[in-house]
Amino acid sequence: MVQSLRSISPIPLSSEGFAEFGDVLAFNSGDSEAKAINQGQCIRLNDLADLDFDPSGRMGVSLFHSTVYTLPHRFDLMERHPYGPQVFFPLDLGRLLIVVALDNKGIPIYPQCFISSELQGINIHRGVWHGVLTPVAGTGKVIVFDWIGGQNNLEEYTFKQPWQIEFTRLET
Amino acid sequence: MVQSLRSISPIPLSSEGFAEFGDVLAFNSGDSEAKAINQGQCIRLNDLADLDFDPSGRMGVSLFHSTVYTLPHRFDLMERHPYGPQVFFPLDLGRLLIVVALDNKGIPIYPQCFISSELQGINIHRGVWHGVLTPVAGTGKVIVFDWIGGQNNLEEYTFKQPWQIEFTRLET
Repeated sequence: MVQSLRSISPIPLSSEGFAEFGDVLAFNSGDSEAKAINQGQCIRLNDLADLDFDPSGRMGVSLFHSTVYTLPHRFDLMERHPYGPQVFFPLDLGRLLIVVALDNKGIPIYPQCFISSELQGINIHRGVWHGVLTPVAGTGKVIVFDWIGGQNNLEEYTFKQPWQIEFTRLET
Repeated sequence: MVQSLRSISPIPLSSEGFAEFGDVLAFNSGDSEAKAINQGQCIRLNDLADLDFDPSGRMGVSLFHSTVYTLPHRFDLMERHPYGPQVFFPLDLGRLLIVVALDNKGIPIYPQCFISSELQGINIHRGVWHGVLTPVAGTGKVIVFDWIGGQNNLEEYTFKQPWQIEFTRLET
């Protein structure tokens, strides 16, 4: 039997579009909580992520250095983390391909793909299905803030048919 | 009475030099906890910061956009946060001037200054005296993880005599 490819077109990351899956961290958000600190020399965009995590562990800071991917990109694996969210922010003006999906009784459905702009990061909410870290610009260096604890925090799902994310111009 | 300047020469940031004040977050740390994830496509440098924080609040993610400073830089203010640590990582390949000091009965003493390289960040431990965020390269955009809660988490100290951080070549 021939395996057919299923295709996804990426769209630019925005707070509104991503709201069902997590938070967008960006400097141009017009956040009402922006406040001046340090005698007016610094703007603080305060508390941008919903960090709901299981109290059996804690949130920790890690650095990831990933392969940089090219489009079109094929994948068949998604994952989710039952114990906490995951914050990702590129450290080199890089850009991320972000695949997320809804859940139907333990199966990821309706995968969607976003592309971040420079100086955008994300918080993927606890338990939300997502693809692995997929930088498509920069050197693949990313700061991560996620749950660290004793339980297995990784659940994976492999699609029988792969998905393909189509080429797009990386417009900002 | 003439106020005399007291001078500090910055030195490159390193884990060893900074250990008394906090953690250095870097990709070249040779960390023994580095592990391959995502089917070998990503290296995870795991859990790099001691995030000791008061349980009356929580750690949150914020973005700071600071003025970029030039050297020599004069300052008379230091601060500390009794309820938790502060992680700073530049998002634009920027570099930070990091002033820290020991404590003597509520007064910062022996201030020292470090300069970070590209793709280095820091975690300033809970309660450690430090200067305000002082980027000296890049656009001043930084991700911050710090304590968020109801109590006043800011303690400030103003020196009667200012300090001056001397010019240095920004070698990496």
